[in-house]
Amino acid sequence: MRRAVDEPAGQPILAIDLGGTRIRAAHVSPDLAVACRMAVDTDDEEGVEAVIGRICNLATDVVACAGAAGLPAPVGIGISSPGPLDPWQGIVVAPPNLAGWRDVPLVDRVEAEVRLPAFLERDTNVAVMAEWRHGAGQGAEDVIYVTVSTGLGGGIVLGGRPLIGKDGTAGEVGHMTVELDGPICGDGAPGHAEAIGSGTAIAREGRELLASGAAPQLARLVSDPAQVSAAQVAQAAEEGDAACRAVLDRAWTAIGAMCASLVNALNPEVIVIGGSIAVHHPTLLDAVRAEIDRRAFPRPARRVRVSLAEHGDDVSLIGSLPIVNERLHDPAYRHGQMRTPA
Amino acid sequence: MRRAVDEPAGQPILAIDLGGTRIRAAHVSPDLAVACRMAVDTDDEEGVEAVIGRICNLATDVVACAGAAGLPAPVGIGISSPGPLDPWQGIVVAPPNLAGWRDVPLVDRVEAEVRLPAFLERDTNVAVMAEWRHGAGQGAEDVIYVTVSTGLGGGIVLGGRPLIGKDGTAGEVGHMTVELDGPICGDGAPGHAEAIGSGTAIAREGRELLASGAAPQLARLVSDPAQVSAAQVAQAAEEGDAACRAVLDRAWTAIGAMCASLVNALNPEVIVIGGSIAVHHPTLLDAVRAEIDRRAFPRPARRVRVSLAEHGDDVSLIGSLPIVNERLHDPAYRHGQMRTPA
Repeated sequence: MRRAVDEPAGQPILAIDLGGTRIRAAHVSPDLAVACRMAVDTDDEEGVEAVIGRICNLATDVVACAGAAGLPAPVGIGISSPGPLDPWQGIVVAPPNLAGWRDVPLVDRVEAEVRLPAFLERDTNVAVMAEWRHGAGQGAEDVIYVTVSTGLGGGIVLGGRPLIGKDGTAGEVGHMTVELDGPICGDGAPGHAEAIGSGTAIAREGRELLASGAAPQLARLVSDPAQVSAAQVAQAAEEGDAACRAVLDRAWTAIGAMCASLVNALNPEVIVIGGSIAVHHPTLLDAVRAEIDRRAFPRPARRVRVSLAEHGDDVSLIGSLPIVNERLHDPAYRHGQMRTPA
Repeated sequence: MRRAVDEPAGQPILAIDLGGTRIRAAHVSPDLAVACRMAVDTDDEEGVEAVIGRICNLATDVVACAGAAGLPAPVGIGISSPGPLDPWQGIVVAPPNLAGWRDVPLVDRVEAEVRLPAFLERDTNVAVMAEWRHGAGQGAEDVIYVTVSTGLGGGIVLGGRPLIGKDGTAGEVGHMTVELDGPICGDGAPGHAEAIGSGTAIAREGRELLASGAAPQLARLVSDPAQVSAAQVAQAAEEGDAACRAVLDRAWTAIGAMCASLVNALNPEVIVIGGSIAVHHPTLLDAVRAEIDRRAFPRPARRVRVSLAEHGDDVSLIGSLPIVNERLHDPAYRHGQMRTPA
């Protein structure tokens, strides 16, 4: 199982994507082929142990599937998880969208069960690795990945190195302030970009429009006013609802301003935009480009490329390929029984 | 003159601080002793050539002074300048506060005249080097320097490496958006932190208060309403002028929100605050601390230390000590006649 440090980095891995709604797993080869895809509902309301059991079962099933298919055995496991988490100790700290998870030593648990060295990283850091090494940011040294979906998150690579931070929280770009007294974010702070630009924020604005009677097209689309989705607000906007259009425009402006701030502060070469909302709304990229041109210095604004993520939902699987291969022999991540000296 | 790469880095240097108002120069020893301090007015309205002449004369005078004083000869020259500039080619690109300067090959000119290898860096990057290597950020790997004076600028060190950016513009944190539709910044963009938190912004708000008659204490301090300074607004606030107090509070909030954004995005260990306004208003640090606690995630907020710069105005001299010593043998900065192989 153990390999010499100078062996080529590209070995197949087992990727696990732990999300608030679904757990996905797959075998990922160095040529980026994703095989033996499997998924189950997270059902975090059933408790931490039940979810850990599902993760381990899924991993075991993928290993068996890969063996049966004649694929080379994975050399390790990469686990993408919502943050905050401790990537060095392999501990999920307290993600808001995993009920009851608090300081869970997920890597130890998975290693003990699946008998492969495992590595934990925040979902957005996994995504930036996928796009930097194998996607829209390939070849660049300074890459920022921004995900626009329920929340607004990010991962940062600078000078050819992922930026993790001493607490593992670097890259939380959605929690940059874009309005000093703006709407309250999920974490209680005012005016974060996430509180204006995320799917959650768009849906909240939609609910408020319905309550005030200001969005007639939206009212026709929605049966339960408490269940408005960002997708419905967007659909109403497309059908000519001016108030919904204004909500989307404001969301795009907030995301674009946040990106422009990153251009001025970090001078990146590429900003990769992913996440379900980005995939469904290509005009978001145009808006980000326009806000960068409006709010950032001319030279870094000209430099930076704004691109849609190439790997879509698979960023959280493919990104584990470089992570596992690079950390397999990195002593900073040696912990747990699979990584005691052989 | 040339040294082996493995020779100890700490050699004395000649530091030049090119500012919009003054040019300063000194001999800086590895023990941080600053000797042979000299200064002249910049007088940029007399043209680029006149200013270059003053820089070269000042440098020559400092070398002569150091020789007469028996100090060891400087091994190179570090020039701190307003940005934007190209540190690799040694070119001052187009600083707003140096009239007529556009793509000036300052390093070539100074090297030709003074016969020492020279290195150019943005003033705020010089400052972060001073505080990271020899001041409030010593020992940390992730340090952000923020300067609060006429403008609002910054320099960033991450993972033990200065962040320069492909255009040399990284660290321009004052041009992060904190209000989507906020006041227009000097660069024409809306809502940058600099447009609310800088001395220029505070003075602008003071002028507007005077015009509207809303600041009685300020009115008593000011003879020419067109010449209101940030210091006068601050003095009026201290004397009980509520409107002036609100302007300062808003400025501190903008700077604090900007710092909180950097805490969430970059997870730094230390934020060092310098610049003339920071020096004169210690309450600024308390406000920055409060805004970080209010707007940033708990773990990185607890981690980050907020400190006043230790070297005051001398950051732009002392920071050249590590810059010159480290770049003297870095091929990325080899350009100009002094660095062709001996």
